[in-house]
Amino acid sequence: MENVRDNVTGRHKYELDTPCLLIDVGRLRKNLHTMQKSVTLSDKKLRPHAKTHKCSVIARMQIETGAVGVCTAKLGEAEVLAERGIEHILITGPVVLPLKADRLLGLIERCGSLMLVLDSREQALLLSEYCGERDMRVDVLLDVDPGLGRTGVSASKALELGRFIMELPNLHVRGIQAYAGQVQHIASYEERRKKSLENMQRAQETFRSLCDAGMDGDIFTGAGTGTFDIDTQVEDLTDLQVGSYVFMDAEYRNIGSALDPRSFTLFEPALTILTSVVSCNQQGFVTVDAGLKSMYRDGGKPMVSYPADREYSFDWFGDEYGKISFSGKMGTLKQGSVFELIVSHCDPTVNLFDHFYVIEDDRVVDVWPIDLRGKSA
Amino acid sequence: MENVRDNVTGRHKYELDTPCLLIDVGRLRKNLHTMQKSVTLSDKKLRPHAKTHKCSVIARMQIETGAVGVCTAKLGEAEVLAERGIEHILITGPVVLPLKADRLLGLIERCGSLMLVLDSREQALLLSEYCGERDMRVDVLLDVDPGLGRTGVSASKALELGRFIMELPNLHVRGIQAYAGQVQHIASYEERRKKSLENMQRAQETFRSLCDAGMDGDIFTGAGTGTFDIDTQVEDLTDLQVGSYVFMDAEYRNIGSALDPRSFTLFEPALTILTSVVSCNQQGFVTVDAGLKSMYRDGGKPMVSYPADREYSFDWFGDEYGKISFSGKMGTLKQGSVFELIVSHCDPTVNLFDHFYVIEDDRVVDVWPIDLRGKSA
Repeated sequence: MENVRDNVTGRHKYELDTPCLLIDVGRLRKNLHTMQKSVTLSDKKLRPHAKTHKCSVIARMQIETGAVGVCTAKLGEAEVLAERGIEHILITGPVVLPLKADRLLGLIERCGSLMLVLDSREQALLLSEYCGERDMRVDVLLDVDPGLGRTGVSASKALELGRFIMELPNLHVRGIQAYAGQVQHIASYEERRKKSLENMQRAQETFRSLCDAGMDGDIFTGAGTGTFDIDTQVEDLTDLQVGSYVFMDAEYRNIGSALDPRSFTLFEPALTILTSVVSCNQQGFVTVDAGLKSMYRDGGKPMVSYPADREYSFDWFGDEYGKISFSGKMGTLKQGSVFELIVSHCDPTVNLFDHFYVIEDDRVVDVWPIDLRGKSA
Repeated sequence: MENVRDNVTGRHKYELDTPCLLIDVGRLRKNLHTMQKSVTLSDKKLRPHAKTHKCSVIARMQIETGAVGVCTAKLGEAEVLAERGIEHILITGPVVLPLKADRLLGLIERCGSLMLVLDSREQALLLSEYCGERDMRVDVLLDVDPGLGRTGVSASKALELGRFIMELPNLHVRGIQAYAGQVQHIASYEERRKKSLENMQRAQETFRSLCDAGMDGDIFTGAGTGTFDIDTQVEDLTDLQVGSYVFMDAEYRNIGSALDPRSFTLFEPALTILTSVVSCNQQGFVTVDAGLKSMYRDGGKPMVSYPADREYSFDWFGDEYGKISFSGKMGTLKQGSVFELIVSHCDPTVNLFDHFYVIEDDRVVDVWPIDLRGKSA
């Protein structure tokens, strides 16, 4: 990483080797502050998701901006963050025992502020037993399913499971998690608002009944970028697990928001990919060096943000290539000409690279490792 | 890598941490031999594509099985192979100058048997100049477009460009490359045969006219797994750039072949992904720990190959999760239960992992690094 940094610091972004990922650090900082301010004004806390950026540098920036901790989806991501000295990590997916016992117990030992979710008796029992054997104690949240059906216990069974877990030694049930992933990308803001509040208010009832049953209840975590200004209206919700707001991808830009029914512009696109022309022997399009392996094909197509001299549209052209079409002649385009694109779905695209070039005033100011890349286990 | 290897050697595959990629090494070896034998019997040579497996260990096995060299799509992949001592590498995509000049010239210097493709006067001139300045000489192929339109020069302009390049100092034009990616997955074997032969015979005419114009012509390379037994009928074709045959993914298994109009079974699925249940609170499905970030969403859905007690079907369930559905009750399924899947599109899926577990008789016998992973530049 030091080598990469030394070689490129000060270089203009359009002189970088391609394909590569760029972060506009001014926009990133603005996005971090906009979200933190909005959430603080609503008397909630921020527990942003590191699965989006997969970068311990950004996780640290989020904490320095006021976040109470960070989320990861997988144990492997949490291991890297902990190694980098990040604390108060919540792993938002079940970490299954005995499969991952050695790794998980090692992490609990190294990282006292780690928090886990549980959605079954069997796993709760195993976790309690394993912690007991090592004389450790761990904070847990009950994962409550707000209608997505992916992980979590249904509202109707949550009280029973919550009571069961509260009785187990070595586990401290601090509250619940309720993440409604299915509503985050609903295009209509009003419809999204209605659906999200329905789901989250049902989760709130569960939360209250668990508190009545003796749960500490200092944490009720949930929400995503698509509902960041909706779920704050859920009275008992304590913190938001937003992820994509740091970068804002094309997929999120295309949904309605409180300010504009057709787009979501409060956060600015801070992540782009640079790709360059490898072949230009055709009429009306050129072939560029970013394909499926450099941009994840999901959630629509990348949008060309540079050059802006005319309209360009991107299309997929195999594992290693993209096709950029335009009307009119080739003009100044040639092999090596650079395009900058806003990726369609940021999370899995970030996971294809090893580092970000950090850009300020169009020049490289730093290189950050994507150190959680590939940590899917 | 040594650490990973020491920890898992001898372990049963269904006791590995998930998600992870498995190679059935018996099947892999069989696929390597089947292809090599078929191509040798047709009096052609094999120059297999490393973009599929992204693994220098497998590249070496291919050479040991009889391949005359290996292909890579990108300069970054070739750099890693060269570092591992692999020779006779052909980079099948244009490596653009001056953008990648330092890296490319460094590689030419270190790897005398490197071969490049060219599809424009400008790039040929630059390459000739740069090589001249360093007093180096490099082997090149003219990239001829057999109708895909992605890279390469059209048949009608190939002779003119070929003559131009042959005149340039420090470049040695050994022949042509013609890769018809657009026909590889045509479901009907007969239609695929017809289309491929049309395209490749047009390329052969170009090849002959270039030879008549003085080109050495010891190389005419092309073809993919979908046309491996079709393009061998093109008289002048010297070698085949097949890639996917090593692993055979679900996408290729579903096209017709010479032996069976509905499936392509000559090569056996050698690559699988292991995923385990993280949540099972629903009726009729469980949630597993492999999603978009562990299996590339392209070319259909992964197929469940284990367990085989009933029919299971996979569906996508977000960046980190998959949904495996079945009819009937949960049965013995629980958190931690393991599924083995044949991935839909092997190339971009391999690119999501850092290593393969190598399996023989259901047990881990080795761990191979995916050392070309992420080398997209």
